[in-house]
Amino acid sequence: MLRICLSNFRNVSTSSARSKFTQCSEHDGIRNIVLNNPKTRNSLSLEMMSDILGDLTRNLQDKSLRVIVLSSVESPVFSAGHNLKELTPEKGKSAHREVFQLANKLMMSMIEAPVPVIGKVDGLAAAAGCQLIANCDLAICSTRSSFSTPGANFGIFCSTPGVAVVRKVSRMKAAQMLFTGLPISAQEALTCGLVNGVVPPEELDGEIEKICQAICSKSRAVIELGKKFFYQQIEMGTKEAFEAAGEIMVKNLSQPDGQEGVKSFVEKRKPSWSHEK
Amino acid sequence: MLRICLSNFRNVSTSSARSKFTQCSEHDGIRNIVLNNPKTRNSLSLEMMSDILGDLTRNLQDKSLRVIVLSSVESPVFSAGHNLKELTPEKGKSAHREVFQLANKLMMSMIEAPVPVIGKVDGLAAAAGCQLIANCDLAICSTRSSFSTPGANFGIFCSTPGVAVVRKVSRMKAAQMLFTGLPISAQEALTCGLVNGVVPPEELDGEIEKICQAICSKSRAVIELGKKFFYQQIEMGTKEAFEAAGEIMVKNLSQPDGQEGVKSFVEKRKPSWSHEK
Amino acid sequence: MLRICLSNFRNVSTSSARSKFTQCSEHDGIRNIVLNNPKTRNSLSLEMMSDILGDLTRNLQDKSLRVIVLSSVESPVFSAGHNLKELTPEKGKSAHREVFQLANKLMMSMIEAPVPVIGKVDGLAAAAGCQLIANCDLAICSTRSSFSTPGANFGIFCSTPGVAVVRKVSRMKAAQMLFTGLPISAQEALTCGLVNGVVPPEELDGEIEKICQAICSKSRAVIELGKKFFYQQIEMGTKEAFEAAGEIMVKNLSQPDGQEGVKSFVEKRKPSWSHEK
Repeated sequence: MLRICLSNFRNVSTSSARSKFTQCSEHDGIRNIVLNNPKTRNSLSLEMMSDILGDLTRNLQDKSLRVIVLSSVESPVFSAGHNLKELTPEKGKSAHREVFQLANKLMMSMIEAPVPVIGKVDGLAAAAGCQLIANCDLAICSTRSSFSTPGANFGIFCSTPGVAVVRKVSRMKAAQMLFTGLPISAQEALTCGLVNGVVPPEELDGEIEKICQAICSKSRAVIELGKKFFYQQIEMGTKEAFEAAGEIMVKNLSQPDGQEGVKSFVEKRKPSWSHEK
Repeated sequence: MLRICLSNFRNVSTSSARSKFTQCSEHDGIRNIVLNNPKTRNSLSLEMMSDILGDLTRNLQDKSLRVIVLSSVESPVFSAGHNLKELTPEKGKSAHREVFQLANKLMMSMIEAPVPVIGKVDGLAAAAGCQLIANCDLAICSTRSSFSTPGANFGIFCSTPGVAVVRKVSRMKAAQMLFTGLPISAQEALTCGLVNGVVPPEELDGEIEKICQAICSKSRAVIELGKKFFYQQIEMGTKEAFEAAGEIMVKNLSQPDGQEGVKSFVEKRKPSWSHEK
Repeated sequence: MLRICLSNFRNVSTSSARSKFTQCSEHDGIRNIVLNNPKTRNSLSLEMMSDILGDLTRNLQDKSLRVIVLSSVESPVFSAGHNLKELTPEKGKSAHREVFQLANKLMMSMIEAPVPVIGKVDGLAAAAGCQLIANCDLAICSTRSSFSTPGANFGIFCSTPGVAVVRKVSRMKAAQMLFTGLPISAQEALTCGLVNGVVPPEELDGEIEKICQAICSKSRAVIELGKKFFYQQIEMGTKEAFEAAGEIMVKNLSQPDGQEGVKSFVEKRKPSWSHEK
């Protein structure tokens, strides 16, 4: 499932010892973060979350970075969620709190990343694994993927996954997933808005590539301003949001790439982005 | 449509004279509240609403209660909404207010119930009848069902149903239902998120049973905590919701069944729930 | 695409010189505002927006007005969005601000109109053109229509369109449109909730007519109260919304047409609306 581009890529993580459970590489503006601990079903242990967070937040100001893709090594499971061994009664309340605080930090880092974060799923995304995908800006999955929030089966209601899921799908669908714990298919995930597309496994790379190219053809500075405001305005009333958006448009037009974009359009030529804020 | 389990059931309402317009029975943790006034098309008169509210709020702390199913006796109409005879000008403003205050109390009791409330629809759910379903946690309907908010046809815009409906479906769909008053089909209700599933009438019981079993296999205490937080976090900003959710997860893990769930998973055995908070 | 009713219509705009880029006519309670500047792909220039705003806000208290339909003259493009020539660096910040403030005024006038505003799309609705449709109460499009928010291609992220779009469709779909700039088909627009229906071009008039007739058969005063409250309650918490809705229902029942509606129902006769508030 992971396509390593041997030419023109930098392995971001080999430069440090931090990423034990992920593979992270970068090429042509695309950073691929690959969950790589299949024997634990890519469980989101403290170490795994720490690795992903490191990969997600490293060198974010590097202008050549344009989009982040989050996937997992070939496995029937994208991610099975938190590592329950870290949540036993023996670990105690403060260890439990550490897990969820780190998970929240990871979630917010995805939303606050200056570039779009795309989920690429080929398998089961369960519990916090489902949360990870629901928290992406965009997501594509293969036909053999499925999604569930079965925590209550193990005595832990998927309350944190629910935060991400109900912000992407309708309340009835989220309630169904949370209260029954039963999985939904790739097709159901598409219908309810949990993913943007479903393709056969062999077309997954191509579909992700298409989205990445669409993003990479634009100005990073413009996408960054747009993404940041997108999540801000969602939490405003409509009138307030329109007013704030108007000011953001004015600001956008004063950016170098806002000016270049409009000029190139009027002059009927291709824009040349500086990516400067 | 109503399946009465003769073995192992308690008729909750025979013990009181309260329920004139509903049948209420309970078996294996499932409370079935059945609207039973077909000659008024199960209209939500003050008496009917009072009966449903009584059935919904009775013995809620009984640990054996795990899920509530709201349906109606076999009829082409699940419920036609409020009884317009209670809303004539002669009744006057304070009588009108009584109707809507009781309806609101009924709606909030569904949201605040410690167990999930499942709507089971086999027929037309109109106006406040549609509101009743939209306000359920989950809903399943038969292929011959339909949904409408036609109040404006009778001079009363479905403003209260709109509150429930627009929280489950997209704004365009809600506006379509409210402004045109035209019904949507079972299939449309599924597509837009107003119900979780559509099945032939003869499969309705089985589909509801499947959902009930999925809920009953879990800890009541865990479901209660999860449901309460689900509706709270929906009204929070994303960051605030994740933070609050993290604390809820910690709390969940300190519950007896949170501890039992994790332990049983690690020990690879079936959990044994106490259902204690 | 535009059906001019030669009988029984008033050309609202001929009475003034204001509407240069729109055609506005009114018949049988239906005001048709038609974008008519195909050589600029119906771009939303200051003049065009000013014309639409004038058409939208003129004689709104006229009781015979019952619904507004927003469409464009036959063209492959419903509207391509703002006129980029008005957004060049040379125009400067205050000219840019003027464009977005007028656009916001136009958006709010649609939401605040006392009658429903229906979008009728037969072609591409792009950027602010897509915003215009997403901001309608209802919308119907032809099978050959498509929708996009490609601003970032030209250095201007569609932040203002995003406000309208994400309030109608799921966050993942909105993010897909905004970050990739790629168009979605009419069918996708239906599935994600951006429009209420998709029909072959030759059935577009009939479908719009059906919706208009459903609205025109009701009391204008009742629809006005309902529409105003609909957009208010969306921004409230659920409990607060139900409480406010209850009071709106009581108020609605004290309106002349609320009283007439209920009386006519009880008396089993057709209601006769006064349309008085």
